[in-house]
Amino acid sequence: MKTISLLGATGSIGVQTLDIIRKNPESFTLSAFSAGRNVDAARQIINEFMPDFVSVVDKDDAERLQSEYPNVQIMHGSQGLELAAVYYKADTLVNAVIGSVGLQPTLSAIDSGKTIAIANKETLVTAGHIVTAAAKKAGVELLPVDSEHSAIFQCMQGERNKNVSRIILTASGGSFRDKKREELADVTVAETLNHPNWSMGAKITVDSATMMNKGLEVIEAHWLFSLPYDQIDVILHRESIIHSMVEFHDRSVMAQLGSPDMRVPIQYALTWPDRLPLPDTMPLDLVEIGRLHFEKADFNRYRMLHFAYEAGRTAGTMPAVMNAANEEAVAAFLDGKLTFLQIEEMVERAMEQHNVILSPELGAIMESDAEARAFVRSFLS
Amino acid sequence: MKTISLLGATGSIGVQTLDIIRKNPESFTLSAFSAGRNVDAARQIINEFMPDFVSVVDKDDAERLQSEYPNVQIMHGSQGLELAAVYYKADTLVNAVIGSVGLQPTLSAIDSGKTIAIANKETLVTAGHIVTAAAKKAGVELLPVDSEHSAIFQCMQGERNKNVSRIILTASGGSFRDKKREELADVTVAETLNHPNWSMGAKITVDSATMMNKGLEVIEAHWLFSLPYDQIDVILHRESIIHSMVEFHDRSVMAQLGSPDMRVPIQYALTWPDRLPLPDTMPLDLVEIGRLHFEKADFNRYRMLHFAYEAGRTAGTMPAVMNAANEEAVAAFLDGKLTFLQIEEMVERAMEQHNVILSPELGAIMESDAEARAFVRSFLS
Repeated sequence: MKTISLLGATGSIGVQTLDIIRKNPESFTLSAFSAGRNVDAARQIINEFMPDFVSVVDKDDAERLQSEYPNVQIMHGSQGLELAAVYYKADTLVNAVIGSVGLQPTLSAIDSGKTIAIANKETLVTAGHIVTAAAKKAGVELLPVDSEHSAIFQCMQGERNKNVSRIILTASGGSFRDKKREELADVTVAETLNHPNWSMGAKITVDSATMMNKGLEVIEAHWLFSLPYDQIDVILHRESIIHSMVEFHDRSVMAQLGSPDMRVPIQYALTWPDRLPLPDTMPLDLVEIGRLHFEKADFNRYRMLHFAYEAGRTAGTMPAVMNAANEEAVAAFLDGKLTFLQIEEMVERAMEQHNVILSPELGAIMESDAEARAFVRSFLS
Repeated sequence: MKTISLLGATGSIGVQTLDIIRKNPESFTLSAFSAGRNVDAARQIINEFMPDFVSVVDKDDAERLQSEYPNVQIMHGSQGLELAAVYYKADTLVNAVIGSVGLQPTLSAIDSGKTIAIANKETLVTAGHIVTAAAKKAGVELLPVDSEHSAIFQCMQGERNKNVSRIILTASGGSFRDKKREELADVTVAETLNHPNWSMGAKITVDSATMMNKGLEVIEAHWLFSLPYDQIDVILHRESIIHSMVEFHDRSVMAQLGSPDMRVPIQYALTWPDRLPLPDTMPLDLVEIGRLHFEKADFNRYRMLHFAYEAGRTAGTMPAVMNAANEEAVAAFLDGKLTFLQIEEMVERAMEQHNVILSPELGAIMESDAEARAFVRSFLS
C-alpha cells in the first residue's frame, strides 16, 4: 500500500492520478492533496478520498473548508503546499502542480525522504542541479510522470547507464506542426489549444505548440538521466505512439509505445518497478494505425527548442529565466496580450538580457525567475 | 572473460559470432567449434582463434585436420558435435547449427551447466518442453540469439513475467510479401533467396518467404517466455526496424529497434545483462527511414503461420513433424524437386497424417521427425 500526497489534484495530471488511486484502493491511498481555487473540486476529493490534510491557494477558501470538514487539516498558500508535500503519513509525493511553485515543495519532500513522482517540469528545469543532488543525498527516487521521461525510464529498466549512447525524445509537433513558420503570425488561442494527440492543460498545450514543452523535457532528461545535451535528441513523430527511445552503445534501441493516455505513465510511477493492470485503457493496435512517421525537428522552425538547448548548456540560472519568461509570456498569450510568436520573442529577449549565475542557490534561482517575469511584464500594457 | 563453444561456426550466425569474438578479445575466447564440410573455413578459424577442440561432419576431414593440427583435438559426426557442445573449458554454448541436429548437443550442454545462447530454432520447436524443463532443473540460462526473441528478451529486462499481456513478433513478410497467393505458383529459388531486409542462410530465407520462420519463432517464443499461444501475435512490418514488442497489462508496449544487423542480438546474448559497443554497426536513423508500416499477418496468405499455431497448440510431437517436413520440403525446393507452394503442401500433409504423441520423450520426437522426413521424401522422385 502506498500512501500518497498529491500536489495539483484538480489539474489534468491530478485528476488522472485520483482516477488511478480510485481504481486501486488495495494499492494506493490519498493522505494529502493540494488544490487551487476550485473549492467545489476540492470538496469532492475530500468527500471521496477522505484525506487527512488539504491545502488550497486562498485563506478564505481554507477557512470555509475547515468549517465544513473539522476533522481534516486545511491549510493554504505556499506554506500549505509545502506542508502537503511533506505530510508525515505519505510515503510518495506526486507533484503535479504547474509552474515553478512546484520547486520548494519537491525539495522539502526529498529532505523528508519521500519517493517523488514528478510531473512538475519546472522543478528539474530550474533547479536540476539542486534537486538531483538532494535526491542522491537523501537516497530518494525521482520517478518521471510525463510520458516521454516515463518512456525513457521504462527503456532503462534492467539496463546500465554507462551503456546509453543517446536518448531520443519524440515530439508530436503540437497544434501547428503542419504550418510553416510564416503562417504562425496570426494564430488564435483557440487554434493553439486544439492539440492533435493529447488532451492536456492550457499552458502545456501552448508549450507543445511552441515546442517549449519539448525543450523543457530536454533539460529535464539531462538531469533525470545524467546525460550531456549532445546525447539528447528530439525527433518529430506525429502519431505520438512511440513516447521516446533510448539508444545503447551496441546500437540497440529500446522504445516505449502506447495509446496517448497519461494514466499509463502516472500509474507506472506509482507501481514501479511493478505494473498494475489498466484495463480501460486502449490497447495499442499498430495494424489499425498502419504507419508511424518520423521527421527532423527543425530548430529554425521550432526556435524554442534551440533556446532550450542553449539554456541547458549555459546552465546556472538560464533555464529558470527561460522557463519564467515562457510562463509569463504564455499567460499573456492566453490573456490575449501577446501573439503566438511573441511568446518566443519574449523568451529570447529575456535570455539575452540575463547575466547568468552559475551553480546558483535556490535564492538566486528565485530572483532570476522574478526578474525574468518582471522583464516580460514590462512589455505588456 | 567468457569462453565459448560455437556450433555451426561456418554458417551465417557462426561467422558473425566469430566476428564479435575477434573484436572483443578481452571479453571472449573460442575454445571449441563445429563446422560442416568446408574444411578450408575450419582451417582458417583454427589458425585465427586457436581453439582446443574442433568437430567437423566427415571422418576423412577430421583425420586430415588432425594431421595438420596435432595440438588440437579434432572429432567428427554427431558425437563430435555433442562433445564440442559440452567441451569442458567453455562456459557458454552458442548453438548456431541449422536443423534438428542441434537438439541433442543443446540438452547435453544444459546438463553440463553451460549458459546457452540459442540460435538453433529447432531445439525449442521440437523439444521445448524437454529443453526448458532441463534448463530450469540445471539452473541454466537460455539466451535467445535471433533478432525477434532477443528483442522480446530485451523488452523483458527489469520486468516481471506476470505483467506481460502479449508478445508481438514482427515479420518482414519475406521475399514475396508484395505478391498475392496466386502469384506464388511459379516463383524460382533465386527469387525466393532474394530477401528484402536480411542477409541470411538459404534455408532460413526460404522459411522467411513461406513465413514458416515466423511460425517457428511463435513456438520458440511460447517456450522461451512461458506464454500461451493466445498471447503471442504476429504482425507484418516490412522495414524490420522494430524487431519485436512486449505489451504489459498496463497497456505499455516496449519495443526493441535497430538496423538489420544480426551482430546486435548475437552480441547481446554474449554480453547480457551488460552491453558492449558495436561501433561499426549502423545507428538507427528514423528520420532517414521516415515511415514504419504495419499490416495484418493474414493466415490465408501465409498458411505456414496457421500451421505453426496449430502445431504449437496441438503440442507433443506435432511441432517436430511440422519442422521435419518443412526441412525436407525446403531442401527439395532448393534442389528443384518441389515448387514453392508444394513446401507448405508437404507440411500440411505431414501434419494431417501424423498421430500425435503428447509429452513425448526425445526418442519419440526423433522417430516422428524421421517419419515426417520419410513421408515427404516419398513424394519426391
